Amino acid sequence: MATVTLHRPERLNAFTTTMAAELAAVARAADADDDVRVVVVTGAGRGFCAGADLSGGRDTFRDRGVAAPGQGTVDGVPRDWGGIASLPFAALRRPVIAAVNGPAVGIGATLTLPMDIRIAAESARFGFVFGRVGIVPEAASSWFLPRVVGISQAMEWVATGRVFDAQEALRGRLVSRVVPDADLLPTAYELAAEIVENTSGVAVGAARQLLWSMLSAPSPWDAHRAESRALAELGGGPDAAEGVAAFLGKRPPDFPGRLGDGAVAGVPLWPAPPEDVSPSPAG
Amino acid sequence: MATVTLHRPERLNAFTTTMAAELAAVARAADADDDVRVVVVTGAGRGFCAGADLSGGRDTFRDRGVAAPGQGTVDGVPRDWGGIASLPFAALRRPVIAAVNGPAVGIGATLTLPMDIRIAAESARFGFVFGRVGIVPEAASSWFLPRVVGISQAMEWVATGRVFDAQEALRGRLVSRVVPDADLLPTAYELAAEIVENTSGVAVGAARQLLWSMLSAPSPWDAHRAESRALAELGGGPDAAEGVAAFLGKRPPDFPGRLGDGAVAGVPLWPAPPEDVSPSPAG
Amino acid sequence: MATVTLHRPERLNAFTTTMAAELAAVARAADADDDVRVVVVTGAGRGFCAGADLSGGRDTFRDRGVAAPGQGTVDGVPRDWGGIASLPFAALRRPVIAAVNGPAVGIGATLTLPMDIRIAAESARFGFVFGRVGIVPEAASSWFLPRVVGISQAMEWVATGRVFDAQEALRGRLVSRVVPDADLLPTAYELAAEIVENTSGVAVGAARQLLWSMLSAPSPWDAHRAESRALAELGGGPDAAEGVAAFLGKRPPDFPGRLGDGAVAGVPLWPAPPEDVSPSPAG
Repeated sequence: MATVTLHRPERLNAFTTTMAAELAAVARAADADDDVRVVVVTGAGRGFCAGADLSGGRDTFRDRGVAAPGQGTVDGVPRDWGGIASLPFAALRRPVIAAVNGPAVGIGATLTLPMDIRIAAESARFGFVFGRVGIVPEAASSWFLPRVVGISQAMEWVATGRVFDAQEALRGRLVSRVVPDADLLPTAYELAAEIVENTSGVAVGAARQLLWSMLSAPSPWDAHRAESRALAELGGGPDAAEGVAAFLGKRPPDFPGRLGDGAVAGVPLWPAPPEDVSPSPAG
Repeated sequence: MATVTLHRPERLNAFTTTMAAELAAVARAADADDDVRVVVVTGAGRGFCAGADLSGGRDTFRDRGVAAPGQGTVDGVPRDWGGIASLPFAALRRPVIAAVNGPAVGIGATLTLPMDIRIAAESARFGFVFGRVGIVPEAASSWFLPRVVGISQAMEWVATGRVFDAQEALRGRLVSRVVPDADLLPTAYELAAEIVENTSGVAVGAARQLLWSMLSAPSPWDAHRAESRALAELGGGPDAAEGVAAFLGKRPPDFPGRLGDGAVAGVPLWPAPPEDVSPSPAG
Repeated sequence: MATVTLHRPERLNAFTTTMAAELAAVARAADADDDVRVVVVTGAGRGFCAGADLSGGRDTFRDRGVAAPGQGTVDGVPRDWGGIASLPFAALRRPVIAAVNGPAVGIGATLTLPMDIRIAAESARFGFVFGRVGIVPEAASSWFLPRVVGISQAMEWVATGRVFDAQEALRGRLVSRVVPDADLLPTAYELAAEIVENTSGVAVGAARQLLWSMLSAPSPWDAHRAESRALAELGGGPDAAEGVAAFLGKRPPDFPGRLGDGAVAGVPLWPAPPEDVSPSPAG
């Protein structure tokens, strides 16, 4: 298991391009490392991520028109740093748990959307505040947010730009539970342990890609095709044998399988970057 | 801000083809008018909209096979008047709040689905009653309803044709809140004010199109592309400068931007009509 | 109305290939029979379906790589028996109610996802346990589950493989209500009666296909097109005339229409099998 900690506590972990590049790199590293069964993402200090660093003043967002070194381009414009950071978490073959402490505003909120599970501390505050600073939601959140909370709730939060508390996030299904601040990381790690101790990393890695990629597929036949291929491969694999034996033996499983570099047969790599996206830290 | 009032109170605002054409026209007018930051839709008198006017008796729906002047056709059949009225609200670049008083049945319910936020008075009653009169849901609701409330809730309401109260609508996520009747319009206007006073009309207009259009997009890369282009344009625009300055100055923003006729770069017009749809009040 | 009972009570109705083929056949038969207005699916004895029969021991899932007689293939591998059983329920033109008693685990849980309404007895237990036995979700559930309960809830259940009770299923929107065990079938039949007594089988059959198929459609214009065609046909049909007459006469309707073999104009058959799927019990 790996913990990723956003760490600029003196600025409530306000987001920078350095942080974006590092997040993309850490997501890729976690994907490649079979010892990382689950990723927990949290913030150092009193907040999760207070959003874009506005210390550039009124010209803060002006640089969106000019690509920085390593940023890459899409359609001839610089790639949004939010998406550079978030899309590799969508592609990650390990479950990701966001443990949200204090403010998670702007990119601090959208960054968590391609993660699987969001848990909020009572201190958590969320805001899709882009309209308040004259820009649009980023980090591919215009795609993720309506799929996570529904289009109506998404539009209410985006149109008002309101900052809201953990209970409103729970009612709106942005987070799955709210816990006292002291219980935040223990709860996240307990959930991570539930995954690690009970399930196969190969099987859950393939399942994570299947479920997310099927949001992109028009027909359940796409799922039938992909699942049939994956079952043909995994059904004869070591983890299926161990899982059934452990179940029948009423003992904990000890799965030998490794995801490695290869994909499970039939499971699409997702989200697959289009050809015309130039290289960047997100690949 | 504009208020659209369905106004045939002597008939509980039962839906007519005249009403459909007027709704389409008012949605287009609101889209073109930068002074309209938010649209509130409600019904005059004791109801929101009691559904299709059945005064034609058992042949009420027989005319669905013959196009009236101005109705237009699709696939060689007359366009559904429900869709003629509802699709321009999907295309509108301003947030839309439905304030539902009393019955909202049939087209009275489906008309609200491409609106962003639905608030119910305690008197509100909803019903997807099409199966009870031998026809299918309309106003493109077979696309919208499962995306707004989920396929299971959608199917329960459509299969039974049940008329249900505001609390069932709230539990099923058709509406975001239920308020006493006297508070209905004040609540809608308070929400509208929260949008108008805090956010940029250009930014929220672009965000509305982004979020809804991304329901149509297969991949989060589509969002990354559109957002990167929109950020490149808006990041250097006057509303981003004003928004950041107001935030740092701890004062309310005064956004100078205007949406005008043009779209924000990279944000798809949505829903884009297919080429073979003949002209009609919905364009 | 038809009741389908999973019936291997001595094994908690554990799933077999025979059961898969019989479920596919019964779904096709129900689709073809206009006297079957609603289908209720439940389990005999103390459980709904305890999942795959693991009596094959550690090699239980090894046969996934070799097609059995009648199983058919897709992409050159044997078709998943879960999808063989579940996809015909997606295609069925009658509403389907799952009445879940006791354990509904693995295929016992995923089998219900293309059904419209799930009701749980207090004794119900659910589990998407595939990761615990080293395989991926099946029965096209990687497509259905995120659409029924949302991607975040889907991923939490799939990543942990947790077995959870009826109340967690209710909170997570997997089921629409929880009732005492003694009330399970009466509640399902009451809901079925609400459908049968009030609505047209032709209209609801067309609506079921419309709503589910529109989950596959990118644009609400697809719905506008399909609905306009269906309304042109049904609006002049006998059930529309009867439905309006009954409503105006304040009497129960007596709908004469029959779905028969043909589709209602404009309503896509869904999910349409791709051409390269070889024959199997699911067609």
